[in-house]
Amino acid sequence: MTTLLIATRNAHKVGEIQAILGAPFGFLTLNDFPAAPKVVEDANTFAGNATKKAGELARWLRNRNAGRAPAPDYVLADDSGLEVDALNGAPGVYSARFAGGERDENSPDAENNAKLLRLLQDVPPERRTARFRCVIALVPVGEHPARIFDGACEGRIQWAASGHGGFGYDPLFVPEGFVQSFAELGEEVKNRLSHRARALAKLKAFLDGTRSEP
Amino acid sequence: MTTLLIATRNAHKVGEIQAILGAPFGFLTLNDFPAAPKVVEDANTFAGNATKKAGELARWLRNRNAGRAPAPDYVLADDSGLEVDALNGAPGVYSARFAGGERDENSPDAENNAKLLRLLQDVPPERRTARFRCVIALVPVGEHPARIFDGACEGRIQWAASGHGGFGYDPLFVPEGFVQSFAELGEEVKNRLSHRARALAKLKAFLDGTRSEP
Repeated sequence: MTTLLIATRNAHKVGEIQAILGAPFGFLTLNDFPAAPKVVEDANTFAGNATKKAGELARWLRNRNAGRAPAPDYVLADDSGLEVDALNGAPGVYSARFAGGERDENSPDAENNAKLLRLLQDVPPERRTARFRCVIALVPVGEHPARIFDGACEGRIQWAASGHGGFGYDPLFVPEGFVQSFAELGEEVKNRLSHRARALAKLKAFLDGTRSEP
Repeated sequence: MTTLLIATRNAHKVGEIQAILGAPFGFLTLNDFPAAPKVVEDANTFAGNATKKAGELARWLRNRNAGRAPAPDYVLADDSGLEVDALNGAPGVYSARFAGGERDENSPDAENNAKLLRLLQDVPPERRTARFRCVIALVPVGEHPARIFDGACEGRIQWAASGHGGFGYDPLFVPEGFVQSFAELGEEVKNRLSHRARALAKLKAFLDGTRSEP
């Protein structure tokens, strides 16, 4: 079962996320990790805050004693808020701390709502459009898995060593379709048909694909 | 430019890998990291050894002071060897330390070659088939990047709060196509159309896809 650490202490968010995702996930919250660091949400985008929160908590979990329970597979951080068009997108990332002004702490819902209604009191119906936005960041907790690329080169073992190129068993190995050993064929030929060349060709294709992603 | 740490002190392997991959990669070797830990290659498969070596070195690099130069993007570990059919696949993962028997240290190429020729002295041509095998493991050094999933829900801001469900600005927000606020519509309706539901649907699709990979 995939287990998610929902990186919030907001019981409403936890409830909604569990209700929406449901089985077959396991859920943990910050209440299960009293020693987790407090992450300051000081980015000016939802994505920035969600990414920062999930990334810092995943790093913290990764650096705890490996294998210590509970061990979630992913950290999930939700940053969300209300964008009101007549206020040029405010309160936006400041939705939870709107009434408090510059202060870093969340304000009670009732105070945030009262401030919003006050600011919109003269705004006519057709200009009261708004949207709730939610950005969720997901970061794996475990180590990066290794990607594996393999290559093989068929051939035969001679009766005696020949040639001075290459290394290891190259003087004994005659690749299929040739009469000379890897050590005689020279670097350029070996690097076209060797086991290593074939594995590296797959690796190169992977890295080329990685770089061309947006 | 993508920079690879070639996790070997074998100058021949480094030379072949650089010659085959070439530009546009940057290359580092273990000679650039004198403090790197020595990884014991005690797995019984090429993939096991390559994965262990690349994984341990990537973890070591990740836990150094972040941002310290040189900082490769990936660790690349190559484990390779010769499989001789008449010897049931030997020397295989023991190719580099074949002559030394149980000892953990590599043997000189000439001694390994001499041992192989001796073992094959009575083997006829048609049974001298063999193959070189190479397995390369690639592990990213950086932190896992966050994956982002977003959702939005359009609507309007009322003149006064209504309803007691939800939280935050829910009593003020009427989603498009409805006349009641999120706080009045109740959990089940909100959790079908909200910004959070839409972001979580994308996240769920990603996690479902991850689980079904082989």
